[in-house]
Amino acid sequence: MSLSALIEREPALRDTPVLTVDLEAVERNIARLQTYCDERGFAFRPHIKTHKLPAIAQMQVDAGATGITCQKIGEAEVMAAAGLSDILISYPIIGEEKALRLARLARTVRIGVVGDSATCALGVSEVLAREEGEVDFLVECDTGLGRTGVQTPGEAAELAELVDSLPALRFAGLMTYPTTSETSEFFRAAREAIRASGIEVETMSGGGTPGALHSHELGEITEIRAGTYIYGDRSCIANGSVPLEDCALRVVATVVSRPTRERAIIDAGSKTLTSDPVAGTNESGFGLIVEHPEAEIHTLNEEHGYVDISRCERPPEIGEIITIVPNHACGTTNMHDAVVAYRGGDLVATWPIAARGRVR
Amino acid sequence: MSLSALIEREPALRDTPVLTVDLEAVERNIARLQTYCDERGFAFRPHIKTHKLPAIAQMQVDAGATGITCQKIGEAEVMAAAGLSDILISYPIIGEEKALRLARLARTVRIGVVGDSATCALGVSEVLAREEGEVDFLVECDTGLGRTGVQTPGEAAELAELVDSLPALRFAGLMTYPTTSETSEFFRAAREAIRASGIEVETMSGGGTPGALHSHELGEITEIRAGTYIYGDRSCIANGSVPLEDCALRVVATVVSRPTRERAIIDAGSKTLTSDPVAGTNESGFGLIVEHPEAEIHTLNEEHGYVDISRCERPPEIGEIITIVPNHACGTTNMHDAVVAYRGGDLVATWPIAARGRVR
Repeated sequence: MSLSALIEREPALRDTPVLTVDLEAVERNIARLQTYCDERGFAFRPHIKTHKLPAIAQMQVDAGATGITCQKIGEAEVMAAAGLSDILISYPIIGEEKALRLARLARTVRIGVVGDSATCALGVSEVLAREEGEVDFLVECDTGLGRTGVQTPGEAAELAELVDSLPALRFAGLMTYPTTSETSEFFRAAREAIRASGIEVETMSGGGTPGALHSHELGEITEIRAGTYIYGDRSCIANGSVPLEDCALRVVATVVSRPTRERAIIDAGSKTLTSDPVAGTNESGFGLIVEHPEAEIHTLNEEHGYVDISRCERPPEIGEIITIVPNHACGTTNMHDAVVAYRGGDLVATWPIAARGRVR
Repeated sequence: MSLSALIEREPALRDTPVLTVDLEAVERNIARLQTYCDERGFAFRPHIKTHKLPAIAQMQVDAGATGITCQKIGEAEVMAAAGLSDILISYPIIGEEKALRLARLARTVRIGVVGDSATCALGVSEVLAREEGEVDFLVECDTGLGRTGVQTPGEAAELAELVDSLPALRFAGLMTYPTTSETSEFFRAAREAIRASGIEVETMSGGGTPGALHSHELGEITEIRAGTYIYGDRSCIANGSVPLEDCALRVVATVVSRPTRERAIIDAGSKTLTSDPVAGTNESGFGLIVEHPEAEIHTLNEEHGYVDISRCERPPEIGEIITIVPNHACGTTNMHDAVVAYRGGDLVATWPIAARGRVR
């Protein structure tokens, strides 16, 4: 049974906008990347930022993931409370308050963190040593994005040596986001420099959905982190990583106004879809309307989506319910308090998005 | 005492990112627009979408507002439960499920709605008549934005006559967003056409913070709706409606990485600040860093803000705490579960943002 048939049957899906997730598509997406990792010998550590749901994190671990990745301590707190026991926080922990929360968390589950500065390593080490905790520490490397990360293999080695010398930190390897064509060379040079100091580099962790299935073409990487693969979105369709039929996250919306032949207004605006663009392309618009692919959501206000329907042969009428594949699944998930999960013809549950808004 | 002194004193403000609101600035903003409305004889119906807080809605009503404006039924449900008793929902109600919720709400408080189609008026009337409810109904007019609203004064008159003829609806007037240079002429022509049918036009409601203090320069308008005026934001600074010193909403954030002399990364990304641009200008960037106005937040990922600090004489170091005026206050409010309210040197409360995410 399709989503549109479910919408016909279930009144709750017609009180729009509603975020929905197709669990069969989720299972296909999990199987695709986990099988690849198993066959190629990569550890897989999916990033929960896309779904923010303990239930799906557990599905990922049950399928064979080594553990999970969170971006923030607050997300890790939610996942640990739900029973996830091996968590990498792929974000620099800065400040006494954060380090104290990290120490509390590290008492109950295995925690890894990343960092790109002595300030970060020293701060975490000091508080964790005092609190009698321990965490794995990976040195984050900037291998092309120009975001966080040490800038050279030499800096990576210097920070690795510091980490190795500090109490309460266990140097665990290198990490980057995203995996790029420069990643392997950077990792190789850093690993050699670190080994020259007698320190082993256990994990070399690469990230990102678009390049995940090409990781075997590069050397050095031992672990893959990916988030968006679980749901897909318009950006994944554009970069070829997830086909439309496996895009599991859809927003159900309603046409609330049809002021002219060319213009429809839908009840999905920036508070429902985010203002995030399609990543890495010049494609415009704020989502794909599955029933009217020739229509374009060209502008968003908070609660209004402006749709150019001039190219629709059968333009949508007021009251018509549509389904939208968002530009950016992670951002869209973060707007909503709950998601309706279904499998085939059955509603499974309305899940609270437990790690929504955990920016700290 | 400034916000930065409070941050020094209160550890909770250093576990960033944290949304904060300066209640003294809020009070100045309320006084400015309410005084204007009182002196010029406008009814004032502030839009709660900016703050989403019953406490501030009550401050607005206590200062003299006629009632409040909400965008969605879910927001009105929150405000009605908190004791707000006169609510305009400035959004077309489409669909049986929404109309049923509207009917329940109209049993407890005075409710107005807007609409631009016979479909909307007929749908609401049918359900409300069945449920023995009644609402005010304003005809929404598109006076230049190109969003929702009837397109001509003639269409407005036609819909007004229909509304006037339907059970459970009380025709209450005309509404537009935003007030433009075309609004008065549209409203005047519509009013005359409606009066020609023997129907009185009680309210003519204009909207928007940028033009609010110029409403007296136009004719016809009897009511002003404004939202963003309460907090201000970078868009308000750009359009001159709220000066920086009255921008009440600030995001407290931390520099978490300094990979190069030119680049700082802060822990405020699109999940904290939104990807919303500065409205109505060509200004780039995703927020104003108050302590480093020469720095530019040029790119956002979910949890990372990329800051170009090349023009900073004293570039911020890792661990430095900064405060940011966001591009768009309403969108930013919607990202956060809570806001820390302070007055002068005192923390007043951490308020749950009760109407956050109420997109239905």
